[in-house]
Amino acid sequence: MAKKQTTKSVSASKKSSARKGLAPVVNVALLGFGTVGSSVATVLAASKFPGIQLTHIFNRDVERKRTSAAAKRVPAAVVWTEDINVILKSNVDVVIELMGGLNPIEGWLRKAIVSGKSVVTANKQLIAYRGATLAKLAAKHDVHLVHGAAVAGGVPVIPGMLQGLGGDQVTRLSGIVNGTCNYILSRMETGADYATVLADAQQLGYAEADPSADVDGYDARAKLCILSRIAMHAELDPDAVATQSISTVEAVDFSYAKELNCTIRQVSRAQLEGTTVHARVAPMLVPMASPIAWSHGTQNMVVVSGRFGGDVVFSGHGAGGEPTAVAVVSDLLAVAQGCKSVQLPVRKRKVTGEFLAPHYLRFVVDDKPGIVSAIAGALAKVGANIDSILQRPGYPKHRLPFVVTTEPCLTSVIEKALHSLAKMDCMLERPLCLQMLQIEDKPE
Amino acid sequence: MAKKQTTKSVSASKKSSARKGLAPVVNVALLGFGTVGSSVATVLAASKFPGIQLTHIFNRDVERKRTSAAAKRVPAAVVWTEDINVILKSNVDVVIELMGGLNPIEGWLRKAIVSGKSVVTANKQLIAYRGATLAKLAAKHDVHLVHGAAVAGGVPVIPGMLQGLGGDQVTRLSGIVNGTCNYILSRMETGADYATVLADAQQLGYAEADPSADVDGYDARAKLCILSRIAMHAELDPDAVATQSISTVEAVDFSYAKELNCTIRQVSRAQLEGTTVHARVAPMLVPMASPIAWSHGTQNMVVVSGRFGGDVVFSGHGAGGEPTAVAVVSDLLAVAQGCKSVQLPVRKRKVTGEFLAPHYLRFVVDDKPGIVSAIAGALAKVGANIDSILQRPGYPKHRLPFVVTTEPCLTSVIEKALHSLAKMDCMLERPLCLQMLQIEDKPE
Repeated sequence: MAKKQTTKSVSASKKSSARKGLAPVVNVALLGFGTVGSSVATVLAASKFPGIQLTHIFNRDVERKRTSAAAKRVPAAVVWTEDINVILKSNVDVVIELMGGLNPIEGWLRKAIVSGKSVVTANKQLIAYRGATLAKLAAKHDVHLVHGAAVAGGVPVIPGMLQGLGGDQVTRLSGIVNGTCNYILSRMETGADYATVLADAQQLGYAEADPSADVDGYDARAKLCILSRIAMHAELDPDAVATQSISTVEAVDFSYAKELNCTIRQVSRAQLEGTTVHARVAPMLVPMASPIAWSHGTQNMVVVSGRFGGDVVFSGHGAGGEPTAVAVVSDLLAVAQGCKSVQLPVRKRKVTGEFLAPHYLRFVVDDKPGIVSAIAGALAKVGANIDSILQRPGYPKHRLPFVVTTEPCLTSVIEKALHSLAKMDCMLERPLCLQMLQIEDKPE
Repeated sequence: MAKKQTTKSVSASKKSSARKGLAPVVNVALLGFGTVGSSVATVLAASKFPGIQLTHIFNRDVERKRTSAAAKRVPAAVVWTEDINVILKSNVDVVIELMGGLNPIEGWLRKAIVSGKSVVTANKQLIAYRGATLAKLAAKHDVHLVHGAAVAGGVPVIPGMLQGLGGDQVTRLSGIVNGTCNYILSRMETGADYATVLADAQQLGYAEADPSADVDGYDARAKLCILSRIAMHAELDPDAVATQSISTVEAVDFSYAKELNCTIRQVSRAQLEGTTVHARVAPMLVPMASPIAWSHGTQNMVVVSGRFGGDVVFSGHGAGGEPTAVAVVSDLLAVAQGCKSVQLPVRKRKVTGEFLAPHYLRFVVDDKPGIVSAIAGALAKVGANIDSILQRPGYPKHRLPFVVTTEPCLTSVIEKALHSLAKMDCMLERPLCLQMLQIEDKPE
């Protein structure tokens, strides 16, 4: 007989008899009362989901938080603490972790799981590096570990893939999963330069004082690994994923990209071929006709490509307190109602940064005869075919930016040619090499 | 203690002891072996999910199906039948229904549920009209009823909303959920006329011989009701949702739309205000900058707007055998693994087709002095302000199409004015009135 499982909420066994006819109460602790944590409190206060009760808030220097304006939306009975043991030893059923980083968070959450508490987290580094191990621990202790907010904030790409794409064989995914880079690059698209936009982003709170995690791709790399695990059932070592900083992209590159009917975005892409995953986080040329080019500002977008379903696009607000709080609270509801996700076997996969792709090469030279010939020769030597040469008017000859695009070839091959070209006296900057994304949706 | 529920697969209790260490087997019946049904068989054969076994296929005139080319991908042991009782009396755990329509399907699925079988269905009419009742019956008999494929085929908008947006308060949704209309209108955008494109769509299998369910909005209406139930927890009577056919849209409307930086799409939209849902399926002017305008061909797209999360976009292949099969098989995996969805209370809501929106009015007149003045007078009389008057050159004076757009006002108000204007001798056609969609995403 096809019986539905007797799904109980996390605490049903504990309280249902005492609260007959009412939903059992799930006690919730928040670790971290910053932008997202206070938004979670706001959303819970606004929606009053029956049976969910915020009981504890942990934060370092907690008094500052307890007396903040945001704390006014927190029920008076909540225990505020800066001692994690107060949470770990409490009767809390679900711990929501919004602090980020591996240490000391991993240890705390392991203790929470071992003591029978479910965990909802938005911590992408933790899930990218330790997700598989923590999931095993959670299974062993029969509690939930969910992390829908770890990628793309309020865009339900993780639950959508888990529950809606398990039936496909996903072989490729690409997306914009770092709002900071997308803000910077989509503003540069309209003519601003990198330094100015970065400063604005820092002032608006979109970028950290040290922007490296965002602009150099480490944040997006963690998210790409999480997406690969869920979409392609491929476990990747985040440190093995190739990254390239957006900081070397200049205004001139957007002018040339436009001539190629493209724009430039920090793209995180992964592609499964046999037992290897090709994965890379880098600024790339994106055709204007690709959904990836639709994202502006801090928006996130993920395109998942399946053997049977073709391209599926998820898009929306990937950052910010309230959108991220939506993902956290949605996860909390799932945990409280005892809803688990579809699980399919995950395999460790080798990673390479190689892609067979057309490439965009931008040179800045002190112009003299023979440069194009030298570039063409170096590319020919490694077997890369030139697709176009673009030189816009109006730049000074002694500092001339121009562009060469290639037909599809391996990035390593191009880099070999660039390595020799970079030694030429006339090269005023290290040549910029960007992969060019192609549109490959399943035909209708 | 926060214990995870002891989630069992649908048949775990039955077979786990006999198959120790192996996943229990879930027996599956397919009702309907057409485009989607045979694609489900293809996907199951390609992915060989452990523990899922196709055991029965029901189809009218089954011999024709059993000897078809598609049947080659079906395991030899499968029982083919045209007697529904063979399925209902079998040891099947999950019935996948892909036949469509209310009768006799509803009766069959009720019997399946009562006999302890879970149901996976792609049947939008059934779920729109009977979803709430069937869900109660399924809950009573402790089996699953899931329908991720009922809206937008391979685009996981239903699972994404259920599991990923439960924490938001969704107040508005709009989308393109009928691939046939989108194919027709996006081809008309490039200059083709309605009759030609409809004929092409029929030849390609995108449109039925009687295209009414698609072009007149009845298909999309059912889907809009399902989306409203899940996103806004609002139960609507599908028959109460206003529809408007796309068949009165002409090539000239795309020319005028383009001047307004818009295109035209069949849009299904719903908006919750207080206890009323404003809902409408109609051709509408869509700003080119709106995600809704991105959809081409048979693609589907749904934009869900939440109080906290802003706009979330889901997009992809909404029709076709294999994309729809992805949704069906993903649902099947969820049922087989005992994964239930987040449930939030649903309320019956009143429906109105009224929207406060700018309107596009296209008149075709035998031109003579005083027409614009009469139109302006009629609109002024009902309190509608004119926003623009467009008259492109090159049309004959005796059959002149021209356009008036209004500032936001109620559709009923506009229709009142049009009712009086339609009586004028110079009006050669009933004036076309389209709502104009506005972009209202939450600011960043």
